[in-house]
Amino acid sequence: MGESGQSKYVIGVDYGTNSVRAVVVRVGDGQELANAVFDYPSGEAGILLDPSDPHLARQNPSDYLDGFCGCVSEGLKQAQQADTGFSADHVIGIGVDTTGSTPLPVDRTGRPVAMNPKFKDTLAAHAWLWKDHTAHAEASEITETAKRLRPEYLGKCGGVYSSEWFWSKILHCRRSAPAVFEAAYSWVELADFVPAWLTGCTDPTKMVRGICPAGHKAMYNTQWGGLPDKEFLAELDPALADLRDRLYDKAITADKPAGPLTGKIAAKVGLRPGIPVAAGTFDAHAGGVGAGIQPGILVKIIGTSTCDMMVAPMDGNLPDVPGLCGIVPGSILPGYLGLEAGQSAVGDIFNWFVKQLFAGRYANEAEAHAALSVQATKLKAGESGLVALDWNNGNRTILVDPRLTGMLIGQTLHTTAAEIYRALIEATAYGALTIINRFEEYGVKVEEVINCGGIAEKNPLAMQIYADVICRPMKISRSGQTCALGAAIYAAVAAGPEAGGYTDVLSAQKKMTGTKEHVYRPDPKQHKIYRRLYSIYKALHDTFGTRQQQDGLFDVMKELIAIREQTRKSQGTSI
Amino acid sequence: MGESGQSKYVIGVDYGTNSVRAVVVRVGDGQELANAVFDYPSGEAGILLDPSDPHLARQNPSDYLDGFCGCVSEGLKQAQQADTGFSADHVIGIGVDTTGSTPLPVDRTGRPVAMNPKFKDTLAAHAWLWKDHTAHAEASEITETAKRLRPEYLGKCGGVYSSEWFWSKILHCRRSAPAVFEAAYSWVELADFVPAWLTGCTDPTKMVRGICPAGHKAMYNTQWGGLPDKEFLAELDPALADLRDRLYDKAITADKPAGPLTGKIAAKVGLRPGIPVAAGTFDAHAGGVGAGIQPGILVKIIGTSTCDMMVAPMDGNLPDVPGLCGIVPGSILPGYLGLEAGQSAVGDIFNWFVKQLFAGRYANEAEAHAALSVQATKLKAGESGLVALDWNNGNRTILVDPRLTGMLIGQTLHTTAAEIYRALIEATAYGALTIINRFEEYGVKVEEVINCGGIAEKNPLAMQIYADVICRPMKISRSGQTCALGAAIYAAVAAGPEAGGYTDVLSAQKKMTGTKEHVYRPDPKQHKIYRRLYSIYKALHDTFGTRQQQDGLFDVMKELIAIREQTRKSQGTSI
Repeated sequence: MGESGQSKYVIGVDYGTNSVRAVVVRVGDGQELANAVFDYPSGEAGILLDPSDPHLARQNPSDYLDGFCGCVSEGLKQAQQADTGFSADHVIGIGVDTTGSTPLPVDRTGRPVAMNPKFKDTLAAHAWLWKDHTAHAEASEITETAKRLRPEYLGKCGGVYSSEWFWSKILHCRRSAPAVFEAAYSWVELADFVPAWLTGCTDPTKMVRGICPAGHKAMYNTQWGGLPDKEFLAELDPALADLRDRLYDKAITADKPAGPLTGKIAAKVGLRPGIPVAAGTFDAHAGGVGAGIQPGILVKIIGTSTCDMMVAPMDGNLPDVPGLCGIVPGSILPGYLGLEAGQSAVGDIFNWFVKQLFAGRYANEAEAHAALSVQATKLKAGESGLVALDWNNGNRTILVDPRLTGMLIGQTLHTTAAEIYRALIEATAYGALTIINRFEEYGVKVEEVINCGGIAEKNPLAMQIYADVICRPMKISRSGQTCALGAAIYAAVAAGPEAGGYTDVLSAQKKMTGTKEHVYRPDPKQHKIYRRLYSIYKALHDTFGTRQQQDGLFDVMKELIAIREQTRKSQGTSI
Repeated sequence: MGESGQSKYVIGVDYGTNSVRAVVVRVGDGQELANAVFDYPSGEAGILLDPSDPHLARQNPSDYLDGFCGCVSEGLKQAQQADTGFSADHVIGIGVDTTGSTPLPVDRTGRPVAMNPKFKDTLAAHAWLWKDHTAHAEASEITETAKRLRPEYLGKCGGVYSSEWFWSKILHCRRSAPAVFEAAYSWVELADFVPAWLTGCTDPTKMVRGICPAGHKAMYNTQWGGLPDKEFLAELDPALADLRDRLYDKAITADKPAGPLTGKIAAKVGLRPGIPVAAGTFDAHAGGVGAGIQPGILVKIIGTSTCDMMVAPMDGNLPDVPGLCGIVPGSILPGYLGLEAGQSAVGDIFNWFVKQLFAGRYANEAEAHAALSVQATKLKAGESGLVALDWNNGNRTILVDPRLTGMLIGQTLHTTAAEIYRALIEATAYGALTIINRFEEYGVKVEEVINCGGIAEKNPLAMQIYADVICRPMKISRSGQTCALGAAIYAAVAAGPEAGGYTDVLSAQKKMTGTKEHVYRPDPKQHKIYRRLYSIYKALHDTFGTRQQQDGLFDVMKELIAIREQTRKSQGTSI
């Protein structure tokens, strides 16, 4: 409650892959009054595609602007309906989280190049969505150059710079679409672009940049003076070194305001002008906050893939942890190191199994999942004699290797679909445990796990298996929209206590987050068997995923991929 | 044609797992006039089961007798209909092949103990069907004892004595059903029992024994004076040593007569009394003859599993070949070593995939197989990026290890069912190549492959993959009943040229066997890719199938089986 005795509210705006959503949250207790979704109108489900290149994924920046107005207006309407005491005047701040790295080229006035009529049909001028992989060659080049000249850069991002990230995409634009690169005065992450637009900033060099996008994707770190130095960038391309002068020197945490909401946008959506807009951040990191992350608590966002978030004290004792996607001071909780890990596929693997192999027996895939789950729930650990590797989409943490593939071992002539389904779930649990073990090997204790995302909410079988394999209680986040809630929490801190918000994120979390009553607790008997099974998983993991010995099996998956690629190239794919 | 200018005929009787069939074959050109099947009436599809023990599989000896009369009478009728010139009087001999090792206990008069009313409900008194695995403990004991005392015995049967074989079953009977063992004066393989019965032999010690059952299953070899010596048998059980005196000293090839057909049975089925009945043999070995086996020609009988047959000169230069199921002089072609190898599952693996994982999309499993084959045929070698191990039912040759399991590697989120289906077919082709390579490593050249059985006849996709992987032309046997035809060929030789038959098996084969016109020829481009894929298969095969190094992955599959067995035992199976 603010000084007036009136409840205060914050808005979290979460830019996803296909839509943007706004939640309206009561500051006092985190209750969500509204949850409004705006589907991006452009492209296919919001994504601009190129039929000739499956790696390409772009977005129309106009969708971001229209989307904000659409979902916030609708959210305010919903809040009004949910609580007649609610008024848009009691909204004290806005937080924004987005997918990333999703950079877009902007002109000298901060306008997206894609909004220049000259470039409206040029895909490179639009936003480069996180899952755009057109820059894989540039990513390798950056990794190799950094290995040679600046190994410290790689130490903070798991040893490999990704094709999904900021510099890879910009370098690829420079090479593949020089006209766009020329027209771009600067580049800005979507997470920073939205707050800049909301606060009316028209000078790209003055746009407030969030530490989360900067640190996780642009190799920003105060240890080496912010962004990569010009000498390094010039080694990649002199134009990148020049660009550095038109980017930024400083990045801030998301609990700080980027600026006040402009009157124009405030009027359009019906908010008070001047309320603070928090600095931008990424969805998963905001999700960590919305789920209640703290030292010792791992937050897992489990959906088609996972994002695993931890925080660690910034006492300088944490060495670089090999295989983590990112280690960035303040990227989740201000004052703590933000640690990001993840699994490349989780729900995607279960969906693959059902869609490709099993769906035919049932009216739809959901029914097939349900039927398999019923059968798989009856099975006990070890009963199937199966172990799988969860690498159908490569391995993000801890191996950072997209050229790894799935594996199933132990099948007989009696092996059932439910047994395989369960083995695939178990495989993702083993993958999750491998990440936890990596954290702990480097001194980051994982005492508790809070899960959110589709699998956490809808798959009790998976959650019980996770508890039994990982041998820690599995809690489920109370909010179904942890990312948007996290953005709202940042907004409550950016607004500050005077406005009815909070002094810091931990205090805000204490009031605004929570977990569901039901906790999945490990069954010691099952865990005992899973320990044996995990040691088999680990042996396979290390044999196929690392080069332990010269004549080992590390090359098997790579050779199969190479054969596949050569065959498809030379013969044309027939499926 | 005989001297009368009239075509002569022989009958091949093939005792299978669920039925017995008779073919009536023209001696001059191998034309099959009749193919009559008699389904065993007892048990489930001819097999006596014990609900409390899935390893148990027995057969009622009465079915063998009724079955002979049933299918031979019917076969003669069919032949008459097919060719009005045919007369049963022109049948000059009978050959018999059976499953094996399928031993049965007989009393002093040669009557099966099961036909004694006192024992008619005692399962141990019936025939112990080849796939009865109740004697696994005894098999291990025999292997261990032989390793210690008579390693030469194991050299001829791949290094491991099987629970499916003669001595294991008798020893298990001695221990688990002593009353039956006491009531048994002797034991006789089904392959020998039928000729003995047809020729009216009522003294078990005088029953003619075939070299094929004796050599492949009873460790008979003239090198060490026939059956295992009494000292060795006494080490297992003194009662076995005693039994040896009531078994046999000599075994003969199947082209020799066991004796003349008795008047009683001749009258019953309508044949001439006194025509020769050839000595008994096993189905697969007869199948080798029926398919046209010769030095350099591998005959593969490919169905749910495979039997691979080769012959090699008996010049004494062939060392024991590790992993072969059997090396027996004269067991296929008289005058040549008969070499038997095999894969534990081939069609069974494809059926497993369709039944457990895929069938739901189609009206029935046959349609699912057809649809998958259409899609899989469009794929090229290497295009799926998958490799599988064909061990869902263990590995017979070359590893002789039932405690191995299946494996699939290389799957992504885009892997289709057809790709996996094809990978499973390819896996069985790699398994087939591994057997061929083992033959050749020991100097037995494989120049040509003749295939028969269900997969060979009905699965052009598999046959083309086999040709491309194995890089040899794949021919298909002209006859669909190679086992029965082989038995008929033995009968034609047993009858001899005076009666209108042949002097030897090779001459008979020249006239009576052949291959289909269509030959599957290797595509060099596909083979080139399969060479790379095979080297991956071989690496996985050796890593998981052999103990190459102390910390290798040999234990992975065994540990999974151990966990599975312990879990199921302690918790009860839930599926």
